[in-house]
Amino acid sequence: MSVPNQFYEYVDQHKSDFIDRLAKAVAIPSVSGDASYREHVFEMSRFIVKELEALGVKVRTVDLGKQVLDGQEIQLPPAILGSIGDDPKKKTIQLYAHYDVQPALLSDGWDHEPFKLTHDEKTGRLYGRGSSDDKGPLLGWINVLETHVKLGLELPVNLRFCFEGMEESGSEGLDDLIKDEVGPGKFFDGVDCVCISDNYWLNDRTPCLTYGLRGISYYKVTISGPARDLHSGVFGNTVHEPMTDLILLMSRLVKPNGEILIPGLEQLVAPLTDEEKQRYDVLDYSISDIEQSAGAPVALSEDKSAVLMGRMRYPSLSLHGIEGAFSAPGAKTVIPAKVSGKFSIRLVPNMTPDNVDPLVITYLKAEFAKLNSKNKLEVENLHGGKPWVADPNHWNYVAAKKATETVYKKTPDLTREGGSIPVTLTFAEALGVNVLLLPMGRGDDGAHSTNEKLDVSNYIEGTKLLGTYLWEVAATAPK
Amino acid sequence: MSVPNQFYEYVDQHKSDFIDRLAKAVAIPSVSGDASYREHVFEMSRFIVKELEALGVKVRTVDLGKQVLDGQEIQLPPAILGSIGDDPKKKTIQLYAHYDVQPALLSDGWDHEPFKLTHDEKTGRLYGRGSSDDKGPLLGWINVLETHVKLGLELPVNLRFCFEGMEESGSEGLDDLIKDEVGPGKFFDGVDCVCISDNYWLNDRTPCLTYGLRGISYYKVTISGPARDLHSGVFGNTVHEPMTDLILLMSRLVKPNGEILIPGLEQLVAPLTDEEKQRYDVLDYSISDIEQSAGAPVALSEDKSAVLMGRMRYPSLSLHGIEGAFSAPGAKTVIPAKVSGKFSIRLVPNMTPDNVDPLVITYLKAEFAKLNSKNKLEVENLHGGKPWVADPNHWNYVAAKKATETVYKKTPDLTREGGSIPVTLTFAEALGVNVLLLPMGRGDDGAHSTNEKLDVSNYIEGTKLLGTYLWEVAATAPK
Ligand SMILES: [Zn+2]
Ligand SMILES: [Zn+2]
Ligand SMILES: [Zn+2]
Ligand SMILES: [Zn+2]
Repeated sequence: MSVPNQFYEYVDQHKSDFIDRLAKAVAIPSVSGDASYREHVFEMSRFIVKELEALGVKVRTVDLGKQVLDGQEIQLPPAILGSIGDDPKKKTIQLYAHYDVQPALLSDGWDHEPFKLTHDEKTGRLYGRGSSDDKGPLLGWINVLETHVKLGLELPVNLRFCFEGMEESGSEGLDDLIKDEVGPGKFFDGVDCVCISDNYWLNDRTPCLTYGLRGISYYKVTISGPARDLHSGVFGNTVHEPMTDLILLMSRLVKPNGEILIPGLEQLVAPLTDEEKQRYDVLDYSISDIEQSAGAPVALSEDKSAVLMGRMRYPSLSLHGIEGAFSAPGAKTVIPAKVSGKFSIRLVPNMTPDNVDPLVITYLKAEFAKLNSKNKLEVENLHGGKPWVADPNHWNYVAAKKATETVYKKTPDLTREGGSIPVTLTFAEALGVNVLLLPMGRGDDGAHSTNEKLDVSNYIEGTKLLGTYLWEVAATAPK
Repeated sequence: MSVPNQFYEYVDQHKSDFIDRLAKAVAIPSVSGDASYREHVFEMSRFIVKELEALGVKVRTVDLGKQVLDGQEIQLPPAILGSIGDDPKKKTIQLYAHYDVQPALLSDGWDHEPFKLTHDEKTGRLYGRGSSDDKGPLLGWINVLETHVKLGLELPVNLRFCFEGMEESGSEGLDDLIKDEVGPGKFFDGVDCVCISDNYWLNDRTPCLTYGLRGISYYKVTISGPARDLHSGVFGNTVHEPMTDLILLMSRLVKPNGEILIPGLEQLVAPLTDEEKQRYDVLDYSISDIEQSAGAPVALSEDKSAVLMGRMRYPSLSLHGIEGAFSAPGAKTVIPAKVSGKFSIRLVPNMTPDNVDPLVITYLKAEFAKLNSKNKLEVENLHGGKPWVADPNHWNYVAAKKATETVYKKTPDLTREGGSIPVTLTFAEALGVNVLLLPMGRGDDGAHSTNEKLDVSNYIEGTKLLGTYLWEVAATAPK
């Protein structure tokens, strides 16, 4: 049961139709983080529902309630739950993507209008907000559906769609929906595996499958003392200054080489096996890749595997900034009365917010006690999420690997990512099945940046990849 | 030649007229730092010119040119140069005050309309922006003049006035004016000493004379690396993070107990003599005074003299904040690409920006080199000013001391202040004469804060003090 050749032919022949479909989607500025764009997020949901229904998908939109944004109470965009195929002899695959996008303004530094898909024929790139994150991948599934329907080809699997419009703004409401829809007779009943297409290749050359994500624990350390901001002329060298204490505490969290100084954290990290180490050694990646994406020669090491493991399988601690201190241009001579340092730790197995929090809090309190300061310390965890790792030898991954080899003639890199996509963990835990991250775009697509793009070849070959993956699941998964 | 009794009688009898005069001045919102208030700064200058001319002062307003503020090019308010008396047998005293004020809005938390003088009869306080800083003292001189004119009393000294309208906004244009007007036949020719009334008592009980001010050297330390802000998920533990380097550098500048860690700085500080030490021991001041003004028990020491010397005769280093890092509420997971730490050092004799700068820059470079970071360091001095100390045994001070004892029946505290009033140094250096800071208001007046006030008793007794000082100069100064 391999992919019929007519599938690939149809996709190649309808390249410009598929690009038109993406252009229509990009033209709807479905920015979820700005209340004044909310109507467009709804417009985008209607666009998708129409496309799905035209292709025979049974669609249900789920009202996720209201939120407060920019001071107004407004309606959340709906989750779109779609279903096609109910053959008990076939595997049932749950697909996820999001139809909202990050904000974008021409004045941010875009070379083209961000909400008008611009096809640069010379480079073969499609520029536009959402082209790669995540409208391209979402439409990739619709292109696959269309191809099957138009060719009269029966789908090799049952498909379930879960498309949301709030991913860029914390996925409000989605977790509850997923948990509610688990159980006999519910929407997610019978799902055999999950495929999420909302990430990127490690580089701009080699496709990848992603089987892990770091978690996060985000902290706010507040030092307060004086009742109000003081003038440094009048009070300098007479009182305990909160900034002095805070800067010293923050300096004791992490070394310039990235080493975390909080006792006990290192011991939580799962030991590295030879087999895992080898996975990093074979990745198609170089120090120059990382320095190119950072824009400067600032890699922590010259050893490719070390740098990759720093991102993928070891924790990191980043100091983000300070709230309450002087932060504007110029030279203000203030002693801020209350300052809050913000830092976060990226978590890897077997770290969790629950086992990391007490170590962080105990350490900060002990270090603060050493300062002999009369100021006050408060440590808060602002938010947290567990890391996620899947079994990359599961049939879901085997199918995706075969599909990649078929379409791209390359063995995909097996990667873990340093950031988090919280819905991944929700699906894994709530459904109890294997989850695969199968990216369409490249590492240089610039999701969330100016000039976001998707290469035409990634869109078209990516559509083929998604379709082939469905056939390979049918062929590979145990009956 | 002591003060005629009728002087004191007139001041007491005209208390409510003098308060009316202050009310008129406070009603003009002469905020120099906001372009939309500039017309009121001019209005205030016309008010003062009219008052001075009505009392026989020869007035010249000096156009100080233009400035760019809030994006517009606007006219600077004029300096007001006034002159009354030319008797070569009398001493010539140069007076300074400013007629502009800090911004103030009722919504900032004022209990009363800030630009309407509110007389609280119960506490004897006059609330209003500029009441104490610096319209009260400025009008104090005008009250003294009026009293002499109305009583037909000859002034015991020649007076020169220099009133500016930009003190709260960097005294733009004034330094050049002062330097231009020094020399034979120029405005400041023949000045024997300077009296500036633009500061405060140390507490709310005891008058003071101020003979020293700290200088300042303000630094910006910039660490840059990546070409753009990075996502901590993707880049955490793979690149040298500028914040990590900056926080570590900033932590090496000053200890929580106020001790400065830059080698060589301490050696620049003039040694403490027993005589000077004793001056701090006798000041009417307590740890509870400082903790009351800071609003919390955060004094660096329980020893009053140690805390006072920390403010008055030792340097201080304050960390003000960071530009370029995440500073808003919330939890953003950014690795900032370029961050600038701001700190300043308050300077005391024999420190100057010129001898401090190289020590700071050399130290920061050496500490940065120890980090083995691939990021880049830049250190800038944003501005600087030398410390100022006058001889408190000069006849100018002796006269002010006698005047204080006459009016307040108390020996004034001899203080130095921790902040800077740059015009003081300009007068001292350009004119080469003794400069005295003779305050009218109390330490709790709240200049620059909400609910700024001047006690009626300080306004009225302060007017007497200024007048008595003129008579005491005439009596005390060598012929
Ligand atoms: Zn996305
Ligand atoms: Zn995104
Ligand atoms: Zn002032
Ligand atoms: Zn002021």
